[in-house]
Amino acid sequence: MPTVANLLNHQCLLAARPQGAIKDSDFKFSSASVAQPGPGQLLVQNRFISVDPAMRSWMNDGKSYMEAVSIGEVMRAAGAGYILRSEDPRFQVGDAVTGIVGVQEFSVLEAKDAVKVDTGAAPLASYLNLLGIPGFTAYFGLLEVGLAKAGETVLVSGAAGAVGAAVGQIARIKGCRVVGIAGGPEKCSYLTQTLGFDAAVDYKSPDARKLLAQACPDGVDVYFDNVGGKILDMALSRLRMRARVVICGAVSQYNNTERGEGPRNYMSLLMYRARMEGFVIFDYAPRYAEAQAQLSQWLASGELRSQEDVLDGLAAFPSALRRLFEGGNTGKMLLRLGTDAATT
Amino acid sequence: MPTVANLLNHQCLLAARPQGAIKDSDFKFSSASVAQPGPGQLLVQNRFISVDPAMRSWMNDGKSYMEAVSIGEVMRAAGAGYILRSEDPRFQVGDAVTGIVGVQEFSVLEAKDAVKVDTGAAPLASYLNLLGIPGFTAYFGLLEVGLAKAGETVLVSGAAGAVGAAVGQIARIKGCRVVGIAGGPEKCSYLTQTLGFDAAVDYKSPDARKLLAQACPDGVDVYFDNVGGKILDMALSRLRMRARVVICGAVSQYNNTERGEGPRNYMSLLMYRARMEGFVIFDYAPRYAEAQAQLSQWLASGELRSQEDVLDGLAAFPSALRRLFEGGNTGKMLLRLGTDAATT
Repeated sequence: MPTVANLLNHQCLLAARPQGAIKDSDFKFSSASVAQPGPGQLLVQNRFISVDPAMRSWMNDGKSYMEAVSIGEVMRAAGAGYILRSEDPRFQVGDAVTGIVGVQEFSVLEAKDAVKVDTGAAPLASYLNLLGIPGFTAYFGLLEVGLAKAGETVLVSGAAGAVGAAVGQIARIKGCRVVGIAGGPEKCSYLTQTLGFDAAVDYKSPDARKLLAQACPDGVDVYFDNVGGKILDMALSRLRMRARVVICGAVSQYNNTERGEGPRNYMSLLMYRARMEGFVIFDYAPRYAEAQAQLSQWLASGELRSQEDVLDGLAAFPSALRRLFEGGNTGKMLLRLGTDAATT
Repeated sequence: MPTVANLLNHQCLLAARPQGAIKDSDFKFSSASVAQPGPGQLLVQNRFISVDPAMRSWMNDGKSYMEAVSIGEVMRAAGAGYILRSEDPRFQVGDAVTGIVGVQEFSVLEAKDAVKVDTGAAPLASYLNLLGIPGFTAYFGLLEVGLAKAGETVLVSGAAGAVGAAVGQIARIKGCRVVGIAGGPEKCSYLTQTLGFDAAVDYKSPDARKLLAQACPDGVDVYFDNVGGKILDMALSRLRMRARVVICGAVSQYNNTERGEGPRNYMSLLMYRARMEGFVIFDYAPRYAEAQAQLSQWLASGELRSQEDVLDGLAAFPSALRRLFEGGNTGKMLLRLGTDAATT
C-alpha cells in the first residue's frame, strides 16, 4: 500500500457566489494534506473531473434540486479515478471508480457512494459520459419522459454537448428522425457527418427559424431541451399534435442574475395538446444498470460514439466551466489530472 | 308549423379584428331575413348565447385550434334555443337544442350538429354551463389531464368563472383539498361559503403570494390554469413533487397585442419532476355523454351548483364579452334573448 501521509491535495474551492458569468475569482485554489480513509472509506486519486452545467446552479444560494455548495468548500463535481487505499473489502487498490469526488486531486469517498467501473470494457472517461450520468440522462429522458418512438421526429438542443449528442444518437438507433440544434457550422456538420443526425440547425444563424422549419417540415414529436430561452420558444412553435417537451436543463439561463424569460409560446401546449415535463436523473438511479448495459452494447458495436472535450490540469477548471456556457465544447467537458501524484 | 317568412333575424357581426381590449366598434349589429332550413336542417330560435373567453381568439387572425371568424361574418358562439322548424325526423318543433348558433336571434343548424337537451332534467342554461362544454372541460381537464386523486391539493385559477367553479367543485366531490384563485373578497367568499372550496386567494391582494403559500402550505398536486400570466407563474412556485399543471386557457393574455410573457418559473417543472399539459375539450367529444351523466347526477343531488351570470338582449354582447376579461362575472357568462320572436 503506498504511503500517502506526505501527499498534498490540490483543491478548487468555491470562493464567491457568481453574479452572472463565472469569473476566475469565484474560485480559490488551495492545498491540504490528503485525508486518510476511515473504515468503509476509499482514498481515490482522481483522473477526470466532470464539468457540468448543473455546477452553475450548485454555486447559487437558494432552492434547487440539490443543496448549494458552501463558500470555502471544495467545489462539488463528479469524477473518476483509481483507488490508492481501500478500507472496504469490496474495493481493491488500483480499482477504477466514479463518484462525487469534488474538484480536487484526491478524494476520500464512502465506499457505498463509489461505483466500480470496468476500464477493460470502455475507457475511464466514458463512465463520465455515455456510460455515466449524461448517457443515463439522455436514455431515460428521451425514452421514459419523452416517450420517443420509431418514425417520430426528435429535436434536441445543445446537440453537440454530452447529453444532446447522446439523445440524438439514441433517437437515431431507435428509428427516429433526428434534428439537432447547435451553435455554428462546425458543430452542425459534426452532428450530421459524424453522429448521423438527419439535420442540424445553427441557432446562431439569422435564419435559424427558417432553417428549423425546413429541418422539421412536419413538426416535432419530441423536443429535448437542454438550453431554455429563445431556443425553447422557437421549438415550441414547431410542435406536432401530442408532442412531448422534455425539460432537462436551461444552460442559456443559468448565468442570469434575474430569473430569465419564460417560454412565451407555452400556449402551443394547448393548441397541440402537448406536454412539457421536467425530470431529474437521480430519480432513475435504481435503473442505471439497465441503461448502462444497453449503452455499453451500442458503444461496443460502434452505433454510439463517445466524444470528450478535455482540458488538462486542475487550474483549468474555471475556463472549462465557462466553456460550457459559451457553447465552446463539443462532447463531454472533462478536466484531466496528471497521472503522477503530486508529492511535496 | 309557424310561418317564419317575415321574421327578422337580428345579428351581431364581427366588424374588426380588435387591437387589445374589445371595443363596441369591433362588432356591428345588423338584421336579415330568417333563412329557411333545407333538408336535414333545423331553424332554431336562440334563448341563450354562451359568452366565452375563447371568442377572443376566434376574433384574431392567425393560427389557433379553430379558424378565425371572418370580418362581416356573424360572430361565432355556442348557444341554446328551441326548434321553430325541423327538416329532420329526429327533431320536433319545440325541442330544446344546443349548438354553434352564432350571436343572433335565429339560426339554421345542421341537425347532425345540434344536440337535443332535456329541460325537464335541468334548466336550459345548465346545458351551456355544467352540463355543457364548461362542465366537460372541467371534468376531463381535472380528471384525465390533471389526474387529480383524493387527498391531493388542487389549485384552480379563474375559480369563480364557469370552468373554474366546476373544477373546484368536482375536485371537492372527489375528495381533494381545493384552493381557488379569484379577484376580490366577494368572489373569494363565494368560493368558500357557497361552493365549498377549502380556501380562496384574492390575486388582487398585494399579499397574494403569501396568501397562496398559506392556503397551500404543502404545495399543489394539480394546478388548473385558466388565466396564464403572473398567476401561472405564482402557481408554478408552489408545486409539489410530480405535480400536474393543466393548461386550459390564458384569459389574462388574450387581449395582448404582442405575445405575452411566458411562465418564468417553468424550471419548477424540473425541480419538482412536474408536467404541464394543454388540452382542447373537443378531443373528448366521444366521451361527453359520460361526463354529462355524472355531472347531471351531482347537479340533481345538490353536490354541484350551477351558477350563471346573465345579461339580457343581443346588444349587450360586447359588454358581456368585456366583462369576462375584466373578471366581472361570477359563474357562466350568458346572454339571454327575449322569448318573443322579433317580427317586422
